[in-house]
Amino acid sequence: MEIIKSFDNKRVKKFTKLLQKKYREEEQKFLVVGDHLVSEAYKANNLLEVIKTEDNNICLDVPTTYVTYDIIKKISGMSNPQSIIGVCRTLPPGNIGNKVLMLDDIQDPGNLGTIIRSAVAFNIDTIVISSHTVDLYNDKAIRASEGMIFNINITKKDLIPYIAELKNNNYKIYGTNVNGGKLVDDLELPDKYVIIVGNEGNGVKEEILTQCDEYFYVPMNSKCESLNVGVATSIILYELDKNN
Amino acid sequence: MEIIKSFDNKRVKKFTKLLQKKYREEEQKFLVVGDHLVSEAYKANNLLEVIKTEDNNICLDVPTTYVTYDIIKKISGMSNPQSIIGVCRTLPPGNIGNKVLMLDDIQDPGNLGTIIRSAVAFNIDTIVISSHTVDLYNDKAIRASEGMIFNINITKKDLIPYIAELKNNNYKIYGTNVNGGKLVDDLELPDKYVIIVGNEGNGVKEEILTQCDEYFYVPMNSKCESLNVGVATSIILYELDKNN
Repeated sequence: MEIIKSFDNKRVKKFTKLLQKKYREEEQKFLVVGDHLVSEAYKANNLLEVIKTEDNNICLDVPTTYVTYDIIKKISGMSNPQSIIGVCRTLPPGNIGNKVLMLDDIQDPGNLGTIIRSAVAFNIDTIVISSHTVDLYNDKAIRASEGMIFNINITKKDLIPYIAELKNNNYKIYGTNVNGGKLVDDLELPDKYVIIVGNEGNGVKEEILTQCDEYFYVPMNSKCESLNVGVATSIILYELDKNN
Repeated sequence: MEIIKSFDNKRVKKFTKLLQKKYREEEQKFLVVGDHLVSEAYKANNLLEVIKTEDNNICLDVPTTYVTYDIIKKISGMSNPQSIIGVCRTLPPGNIGNKVLMLDDIQDPGNLGTIIRSAVAFNIDTIVISSHTVDLYNDKAIRASEGMIFNINITKKDLIPYIAELKNNNYKIYGTNVNGGKLVDDLELPDKYVIIVGNEGNGVKEEILTQCDEYFYVPMNSKCESLNVGVATSIILYELDKNN
């Protein structure tokens, strides 16, 4: 068994490039680090190959490259990673479902990952992300998703024309709005709907809000100006899943 | 007006030490960075002094040290901070309220800050943190709290004896438990209660769970093993605040 030890090895260099968004897009591949995420990728049929140390015990039926732990650290860009990395194919968008969550320019990868995890927990079918949302394949987003990125349909769109298209297909559009609307608890959703949440600093953009059929908000104590967007979105999805 | 430019300046060195937990505890002080957090500290009467650049516009009635932006970066430990830092006194624990949230060894400072923010939003009176919970004055925890750390009573305790004490004072104790109990939606809370949530990897410790009067959980799709602890706690607090 060959164990690659050199940082100058061509394959090591190629894998390491996948830390950069540009190369992920060029290659249509991304990396996941650690036993749990590699297993989730494998179960979802998205795992192309693995890179691991000799003493990692996970055995999967995909091409395997053995490397030193220092090379695992280099490829993952982490100081203390688990000893296995998976190379995955980027996720093909599937058909749009009836329960749609739309993200208007979420900036923090941890928030994006948290929202994906909660969307799976609360039975959303499809997540639509805007063009300026943080990269889905950012390592922090993938980690925060706890592998749930492999369990839901996610698609990137230019939101305004796409909202028009969905309206033509009888989706009702709901926007979060701190300035009013219904309590989230009072929403009665139709079969086909879209929930739009906005970004960390500004909420949903005005030109998108004007496209909505109805507005709603999460009630809270006035001492607190707002909730973390991952938290707010999760509360909304929990409440809507429970009531509808 | 004197503007400190030297990294070797004694006061700069003293402020910079507050990045370390050990010195925060020794000095009973901690730092907050940026206009919003400094203002929240001032409103809460916790601001001792500020360190800022000449062009920062915030004027507060506390001793002010002027420094260069490079020194702001050094003291804050951040690569791109806002141009003001507040030195605060550590928060004195107040009287315990009736609505208590107890955190059993939360490890991630972002999760701790998020939970504090949501606890204020959903009307918790007191947060009790266990001895091994991540430091409350960690800069990431303070940032994630969005300054809400100044708007709620927070106290550190050895949980097991403290739970016994609270029980003697007629508090009812509720533990989150993935293995069963009531739906969070079905809980009917008495006047005085304690909600216990556990840490990221393991949930609430067995020896603490056995002290609880009742258990509950947040229902979710089985594809998702668990929620982020900040999210789960926020959903619980939202639901309990709404129903009780």
